[in-house]
Amino acid sequence: MGEATVSIIENMERRTVDAFVKKAVELDHELLEINVKPVSLVHIGRDENGNGIAASGEAIEEMPKKRLAKGDSICLDFGDHHVGYVTLKLASAGSPQDAPAFLRLKFAEIANEILDDSSTYEGWISKGWIQEEFIHIDVLPCELKLPRRYAFRYLEVYAIDTSPKFQVVVEDAALTAVSAVSMEDVKPLEGLPEDLQKIDRASLKTLQDCMQYVFEDGPKRDRRLWIGDLRLQAKANYATFKNYDLVKRCMYLFAGLTRGDGKIGACLFTEPVMQVDDTFLWDYSLFFVSILYDYYQETKDLEIVKELWPTAYCQIRLALDDMKDGVLDTEKFELLAFIDWKEGLDRQAAAQGVWIYCLRHGKILAELVGDTEALETIEKLLTEALENAVSHFWDEEQGFFVSGSRRQVSWSSQAWMVLADVFDKEKSRKLMLHLLEENPEVGVATPYAYHHVIEALLHVDEKDKALELMRTYWGGMIGLGADTFWEAFDPKDTNASPYGNAQVNSFCHAWSCTPAWLLREYF
Amino acid sequence: MGEATVSIIENMERRTVDAFVKKAVELDHELLEINVKPVSLVHIGRDENGNGIAASGEAIEEMPKKRLAKGDSICLDFGDHHVGYVTLKLASAGSPQDAPAFLRLKFAEIANEILDDSSTYEGWISKGWIQEEFIHIDVLPCELKLPRRYAFRYLEVYAIDTSPKFQVVVEDAALTAVSAVSMEDVKPLEGLPEDLQKIDRASLKTLQDCMQYVFEDGPKRDRRLWIGDLRLQAKANYATFKNYDLVKRCMYLFAGLTRGDGKIGACLFTEPVMQVDDTFLWDYSLFFVSILYDYYQETKDLEIVKELWPTAYCQIRLALDDMKDGVLDTEKFELLAFIDWKEGLDRQAAAQGVWIYCLRHGKILAELVGDTEALETIEKLLTEALENAVSHFWDEEQGFFVSGSRRQVSWSSQAWMVLADVFDKEKSRKLMLHLLEENPEVGVATPYAYHHVIEALLHVDEKDKALELMRTYWGGMIGLGADTFWEAFDPKDTNASPYGNAQVNSFCHAWSCTPAWLLREYF
Repeated sequence: MGEATVSIIENMERRTVDAFVKKAVELDHELLEINVKPVSLVHIGRDENGNGIAASGEAIEEMPKKRLAKGDSICLDFGDHHVGYVTLKLASAGSPQDAPAFLRLKFAEIANEILDDSSTYEGWISKGWIQEEFIHIDVLPCELKLPRRYAFRYLEVYAIDTSPKFQVVVEDAALTAVSAVSMEDVKPLEGLPEDLQKIDRASLKTLQDCMQYVFEDGPKRDRRLWIGDLRLQAKANYATFKNYDLVKRCMYLFAGLTRGDGKIGACLFTEPVMQVDDTFLWDYSLFFVSILYDYYQETKDLEIVKELWPTAYCQIRLALDDMKDGVLDTEKFELLAFIDWKEGLDRQAAAQGVWIYCLRHGKILAELVGDTEALETIEKLLTEALENAVSHFWDEEQGFFVSGSRRQVSWSSQAWMVLADVFDKEKSRKLMLHLLEENPEVGVATPYAYHHVIEALLHVDEKDKALELMRTYWGGMIGLGADTFWEAFDPKDTNASPYGNAQVNSFCHAWSCTPAWLLREYF
Repeated sequence: MGEATVSIIENMERRTVDAFVKKAVELDHELLEINVKPVSLVHIGRDENGNGIAASGEAIEEMPKKRLAKGDSICLDFGDHHVGYVTLKLASAGSPQDAPAFLRLKFAEIANEILDDSSTYEGWISKGWIQEEFIHIDVLPCELKLPRRYAFRYLEVYAIDTSPKFQVVVEDAALTAVSAVSMEDVKPLEGLPEDLQKIDRASLKTLQDCMQYVFEDGPKRDRRLWIGDLRLQAKANYATFKNYDLVKRCMYLFAGLTRGDGKIGACLFTEPVMQVDDTFLWDYSLFFVSILYDYYQETKDLEIVKELWPTAYCQIRLALDDMKDGVLDTEKFELLAFIDWKEGLDRQAAAQGVWIYCLRHGKILAELVGDTEALETIEKLLTEALENAVSHFWDEEQGFFVSGSRRQVSWSSQAWMVLADVFDKEKSRKLMLHLLEENPEVGVATPYAYHHVIEALLHVDEKDKALELMRTYWGGMIGLGADTFWEAFDPKDTNASPYGNAQVNSFCHAWSCTPAWLLREYF
């Protein structure tokens, strides 16, 4: 996820477990590098609905023939989404260069970003995320080696000014793309219809480009390690790239860098120093339990479970601090748990689902390590949680879980209660079908939440319905030209953003990569 | 000067005299470096006339305590004008840095430039000259070593965006100032009134900051070697820093890098390769003769006169190509000669003055090297030129030289005819007094042209009048806070620019440095 909210804790006490951090550092790794060249020049325009599209332009061989005078631009297409470092070979044409060349470089994951005007950006997260550079070049020719990393497919070179006497020529462009994994390590699924093949491919590319020194949130905008995203990325990774060390490294980082009381942060930084952020999300901290559980299921590595169980169990105990009468105390703060970016979403019921979901995993882990005391506590909590799920949230008349004092019916509440197995499979199945039929207004805003709806459908064996939703939703992004999947996508409003402006949206976002896993696990 | 006009000559033939270029290269040199620290933080505001002024702000020790959030800025005052390279030590404050810091850095020679809004710039020379950088910093703390050279006194650091979670701190700032010469090499003039001391100091600083690998035009905007400026810089240098090698190097560059027919360009480049520009100005090419003459007068180096005389004489011969009926053929192209940026100026009469001025120097050089053939030609041209000066341009009734078909009376025409000694000293003196009295409308726009008016007054022994003008004009810039003298200054319009917008004006400009020479030679 991005930033669920701006959390600032002055002088927060942090705890470092050196042994875990040391292991995380040992699991650090060199990235794989591949050299990528632009494949063509494109013209970016708008389709009939106003969405940006890249129209095939000219062969890349034409690039060095273009002379960019003031106001001219070219747009390079690197053929696919990549994350990496760009070098441009620039020269001048015409009379001798009698002024600095002043260039704007725009890096875009999707065509829309080329059309965006950054001067109009007024969103609430930093404008600094817009991948746009303003560069003066005093002496041409030169090799312009850009020091920053970009996530992009398109690169627009725009001459803000040259002088009436000379023009700028882009003689060559090269990209060193980086990732912890290679696309060649994963076999494409065979026998799938073309649309699902495309969805699978974009899911894999999304995951690949988010796998760097850690599982990143979204390489365009947020290079931090977020734990909610890590949970989905790790599961997708098990089904595809199988890079277990990267998951292990991330678990050690979260366990090694916590708040003073041991609470795991929503995200953490690895630069300039490794430290946990001062943002905490109730559901995200709890997911450490599930991540450890999933890792064990995949690797059967009991050692790491033993090592990290105390950290995981600590999250369950600390979760109680934010609960009242057995449910999340959302009166304390609306965004205590994340669940989804959906505006107006009441998160209490869905949080109950997450609570049960993680308690179930915690119970199994406690059994594995033989922590009978914890097991007893968790079993008690689980029983209560299941009772509360029904007594607090189930509305028999409507046939839905309702959330909060407004008794809100949302997609996320139903999905999480189903994933939590509050009811038996058949009743859950009926609930999901009822959900699709009634289509309550409070839907989902992100692929993250959409994933949980689809996973809930698969959980109750409604494969066709799940596939239908996947095709509509992820396929909708493909229809708009996506090479990788987005942080936020609302088919009814392709310009939607959790940040008040889509310019800073990330279009290769960790939590959107799950179709590659779901297609492999369920089909 | 800047760019008199945009001259573009497609596929211009260039001639290189390797022996001269080799000598120029041998005369290349390391620059002197001094380390400069900011002296305080200032607040830039406007005075009652709307001119930018720097109000003393806070001690520089306060700088590291400032936390720059979105929209905040600080302005560092380096205490004087300098040319050099800046390194900033930046850090973050608050929560961990969760977004790139996006900073705008503005370098300003005068306070006005801090107040300028570059987005409104619509001048006809490149916007790239505005000393403003837009920089993303992914990881703080960092040492930001800016690769470009700036000419400035003030540096504004403005946080375009950080994030709600962190702020940027400028912990330290350092400048490595560069020049071919040191201010310590010149004794300040003693016994001068304070205002003239200030004028002398700013003149010296202007010259120092323009003396780099070549005599630059203006280190903010135009780092080329312009020959019209070189003439004045060389003379000011003889009276002050006495760096003869730099003049020699520049003469060899001009002589070694010409148009195919040997014509010397208005300016030349030393990077990325040494080459003459495709801009030619009739008066500027001719000034090579005077520069060589002045160098001989200062050094008595006859060897270099012998070596470069053919190049100098070539300029006289080629000048004839642009003349008709013994005067400059301005019908061919209005800006054949530069003279001044003054709008509407008819340049024909002043050009005649330049022609005679240079022929007189050429005659002496021809005698020195014993080139009797050239001597004969020059003597003939000089006689004709003097006759034409009177017959074409003198208006007995008005008591002024008039120029062009419009019979324009301008300051520059009179000044150059006086410097050319068209009349005897007494008649010239009366002409200059008549000029001051009548004050014709077509005045001067630049310190370059103003210099020639003052030099003409000194030439006819009107020292008091000369000093009065110097005090009004150069003193006017001092009154507006100048540390160095400007490319263009109109006391009636402090926002005047030859480029349609003062944002790109140079405020440390070679051709404005002459008071340091005039004060030493005449007072």
